[in-house]
Formats: sequence, C-alpha cells, structure tokens
Amino acid sequence: MKKPVIAISIGDLNGIGIEIALNAHTQVTQLIKPLYCINETMLKKASSKLGLSIPSDFHCIDVKGNFDIKEGTVSKESGLYSYKSFKKAINLCEKKKASALVTLPIHKEAWFEAGIDYKGHTDMLRDWFKQDAIMMLGCDKLYVALYTEHIPLKQVAKKIKTKKLTSFLLDLSKDIQASKIAVLGLNPHAGDGGVLGDEESKIVKAIAKANEFLGIEMFHGPFVPDTAFTKPMRKEYQHYVAMYHDQGLIPLKALYFEESINISLSLPIIRTSVDHGTAFDIAYKNKKPSHISYLNAIKASIHYLKKSSN
Amino acid sequence: MKKPVIAISIGDLNGIGIEIALNAHTQVTQLIKPLYCINETMLKKASSKLGLSIPSDFHCIDVKGNFDIKEGTVSKESGLYSYKSFKKAINLCEKKKASALVTLPIHKEAWFEAGIDYKGHTDMLRDWFKQDAIMMLGCDKLYVALYTEHIPLKQVAKKIKTKKLTSFLLDLSKDIQASKIAVLGLNPHAGDGGVLGDEESKIVKAIAKANEFLGIEMFHGPFVPDTAFTKPMRKEYQHYVAMYHDQGLIPLKALYFEESINISLSLPIIRTSVDHGTAFDIAYKNKKPSHISYLNAIKASIHYLKKSSN
Repeated sequence: MKKPVIAISIGDLNGIGIEIALNAHTQVTQLIKPLYCINETMLKKASSKLGLSIPSDFHCIDVKGNFDIKEGTVSKESGLYSYKSFKKAINLCEKKKASALVTLPIHKEAWFEAGIDYKGHTDMLRDWFKQDAIMMLGCDKLYVALYTEHIPLKQVAKKIKTKKLTSFLLDLSKDIQASKIAVLGLNPHAGDGGVLGDEESKIVKAIAKANEFLGIEMFHGPFVPDTAFTKPMRKEYQHYVAMYHDQGLIPLKALYFEESINISLSLPIIRTSVDHGTAFDIAYKNKKPSHISYLNAIKASIHYLKKSSN
Repeated sequence: MKKPVIAISIGDLNGIGIEIALNAHTQVTQLIKPLYCINETMLKKASSKLGLSIPSDFHCIDVKGNFDIKEGTVSKESGLYSYKSFKKAINLCEKKKASALVTLPIHKEAWFEAGIDYKGHTDMLRDWFKQDAIMMLGCDKLYVALYTEHIPLKQVAKKIKTKKLTSFLLDLSKDIQASKIAVLGLNPHAGDGGVLGDEESKIVKAIAKANEFLGIEMFHGPFVPDTAFTKPMRKEYQHYVAMYHDQGLIPLKALYFEESINISLSLPIIRTSVDHGTAFDIAYKNKKPSHISYLNAIKASIHYLKKSSN
C-alpha cells in the first residue's frame, strides 16, 4: 500500500513538539511520508539546541520566519511561527499535496501574544472552513465523538434536538469507518422510560432518522450511560457518541489517557492531534518526551483519511 | 481480631441469592459470623432444589413464611418473603445483634406484586430511618459517593448548593475511613474559571466549610472531571464525590464493573449490597453464579462498620 503524504505542523518551537518530531521520524516514515512545515534555518536552530542530527529524509516545507528559540517560554515570535506552520499545513491539504494534517502542540497564550484570535487549532479550523467540525477523541480501542463540547453542564439538556442530532450523526457517518456506533442517552438509566428525564425520546428519533437516511442500522442506542463503557460493551463498539464533554471524556481518560488523540471530523480535511501540550517544563532538557500520542495521531490520520483527499 | 456478626438478608428465593449464600458460606465464615435471615423450612426447600447440602454452621434467624420456590419467576410470596428477611436483618442491626447488614438481591416487581411500596432496599431504608442515606458504589480500588442520584441531568446544576453539599460532605466524613476524598467539579474543565459554568464556586465554598468544620483538609478539589479518574489520580484517591449519577458511575463501571458493590451510608446502620440482580435466567440451573460482588459486599461491610454498632 502506498504511504500517504501527511503534513505535520510543527507546533510551538519553544516546546517539546520538534523534539518528538525528530526522535519519532524513523518510526513515522514507516507509516507515512511526512511533510514538516518548518524552514531549514529554524530546523537547524532547534536540532542543534537539542543536540540531535537532522535525518536526511526529513522533508521540510518552507515556513518563513527566523527567531531565537527560548525553550519553555511563551513568546510572540514562537506563537506566530506555530500559527504560520499550521496555516501552511492546512494549505498543503487544501492543495491536495497532503492527505491529512497532524498537529504538534501550540501554546494558546503564545497565540494570544502574537495577536492570533483563536483559542486553538479546532477553533481556527472552524473559522477557516466555516464549518462545524466534530471533535472526536480516543485511540484504537475507543473513540468518543462529542455532540456538545465546551458548554456548562446545565445547558446540555436543551441542546438535545432531534434535527441537530440527526445532522451530527449523518456528518459523523461520512467520516468514520465503522459498521456500528453506540449513541449514549443523556440521563441516568437513559431516562428509565421518561421517569428520569425525557430527552432520550429525541435521541431515539434522531437515531431512527439517521439510520433511515443511511439505509443501514449504523447508529445503535440510546444506551444507558453508566454501563455503556463496561468491557462487554467495549468489545461490541469502538465508536461512541457522547451527549456531553465529560460523559465521553471521563471514561476515555480513565481507560486510555496516554494513548488518546484528538481528531477534527466533518471538515474538508482530516486533522489529528496529540492530546498533550507543549510541556514547557521538559522542553530541550533531553527528557525524551513520549511519542505514543504523536504516533497514534499519525495512525489515526491514516485511518480516518478522507478518500477525497488521497 | 474478633469476627463481626453480619446479618444477611436472603433476597428473592426464586433468584440466585440463596445459591450464592450457600456456595460462598465457607469463604464468608473466614471473614465474618453470618446470620442468615431465612427459616429452616425455606432453607431446606432451596438447598434441596439446588442439590446443595446445608453447612452445619449455617446460622439461620427465623423469618416466618412457607411457599413453593418457583425458580426464575416473579412471585408475590417470594417478594414478600424477601421483604420480611430484609426487615429482620435491619432489626438485628438495630438491636445490636449484628454490626452491619449485607443484602442479597430482591426483585422490585416481586415487591410490587406483594404490595410493598418501595422501589428497593435504599428507598425502604430512607423511609425506615427517616434519614437521607448516602449512596456510595465501588470496590477497594475506587469508591464513588453520589451527591445527586436518580434525577434528570437537567436538574443537577440547580441542586448544587453550598449548604446542602457541605452537609453531605460532613455526613460522608463520619462514615468513611479515608484521610482524603476527591470532590469533582460539575462542568467541563471544572468550569474553566467560570467560562464553562459557575457552580464550582459553590463547590469550593462547601469544601472549605466542611474542612474548616472538621479541622483537617479531608476534602480536596473541585477536580476537573475528565482527568479525575486517570491512573495517577486514582493512585492518590480511593474515594470520590460525584456531583451526579453518571459522573461517578461511568468511570466506576468502565474500570471495575464486576467487583463493585453498593453501600448505604449516613444511616444508623451500615448496609452493603451486591451490585447485581436476581438473575432469574440462571437461577437454580447449577450455573455457579459469581461470588465476587457478594464477597466484596461483605468485605466492605467490615471496612465501613459503624463503631457504634460493634
């Protein structure tokens, strides 16, 4: 099978991203052809500071910029550079020069210092493509797509609407390769027949409508939330739809914290990301930061590749 | 150490409870002195139907009643008998003839058929003692006490009240032997400084008030819910307070479903219970139902014994 070309945005150069990219390169090239969005000058500065040699097949895509790396420091220059690297990686995907995009961690404060008005990668992607990205987190063993994300818990119930949830499920079905997906209920015991809440009736309808549209029984449920992540259930389902942030992320992180990654779906491009930050405290200290999440992000990018961008 | 005397309510005799009690008896007597709330006649009927002999030290406490066991069947007679067995066990605790109470599973429909107006053991205990029992579930590795239980998710946020939560924490502190307990936030990222919900400010106050009253820093938090159950956190904390049903029970059941048990705290007596039902489908079929939850319920009853009832 031909290895896909994947754009790697290099993240905040004052953090651990570049060290991970250099150290994991050999393993990464067994899976994909990486295109690193960083210029030669900055790459040399980082590798020399790290005391690491640059692999001969470390293909760089020029991203203009030249500044001194200040390890473990929030800096305007580094923030701006990570943003430009990200934009370049998006660009490569849009021009079909890359099939997907894997992001190394940026620092949100550094973006703020650089005058970049986004809270992070996903926020920027939503604005860039003017589309509601679906946020999915997980690993091979368990993926959780979030129907609602960063909103107060008290606002969740009123967001459960048949039409909106149906659209969400249909959008999701386009991007993930799974024959069945478990949809969770909202309330304890999935409402226990309406006694403990009635939002499940809307979830039932959304599932039925989505399946009817698809012509297959892809979406199952709504499942009782507290038994949905037990071992027998996880043997049946790899993909779940959670109604709210913690309903999905509590079990995911309880079970598979280190392995997990973040995926943006329902966009014209596939973007995956490590699930950790810039780790300024250990940057450029030869502490060999873990590659697990980065390699899993790359593996996931392959798995969720959009056929259209191959 | 002297073995504590524990009352065992026998559960629905048409289900698996009595089989578990007979099969686990030898193991159980290594931990406690069990007092089984069942009369000789019914015990003989059950053991003969099961083809099991009655251990010579199987101490029974008379509970009047005589009916034919109909395995795997909802019956008024069996429902009534399980209720009387439960009442007898409570009675033994109240009279200090037993230090705690372990319940084998009843069938809620059978209680209904028998005209018993409670949804289950906990419901009956709350009414009996006119006290708000605290429901805690878990196993040695992880216990979760529920601040709110069987209510719709949309009602949870408004139940977070400083005074009520402070009382809950203080009640809990009386019954559990732990130097520190993790209290969860309500919202994603524990509200992220108020941006994603502001109920955490009340939780902060309740924790401070409870700790001030106790004179020790027993309660920690509020913790970000989605990272509260990761391995490093679970190494630090054995006991958690969840703000709502699924916040606590999703991670517990994802991690330790089979081992878990149910404990009623903040009552004049300690009651623990298996976390499974009557399993009518396998009753009296020589399928050797698992004892794990029953043995764990007994171990927990010892651990959480009220000093006053020794």
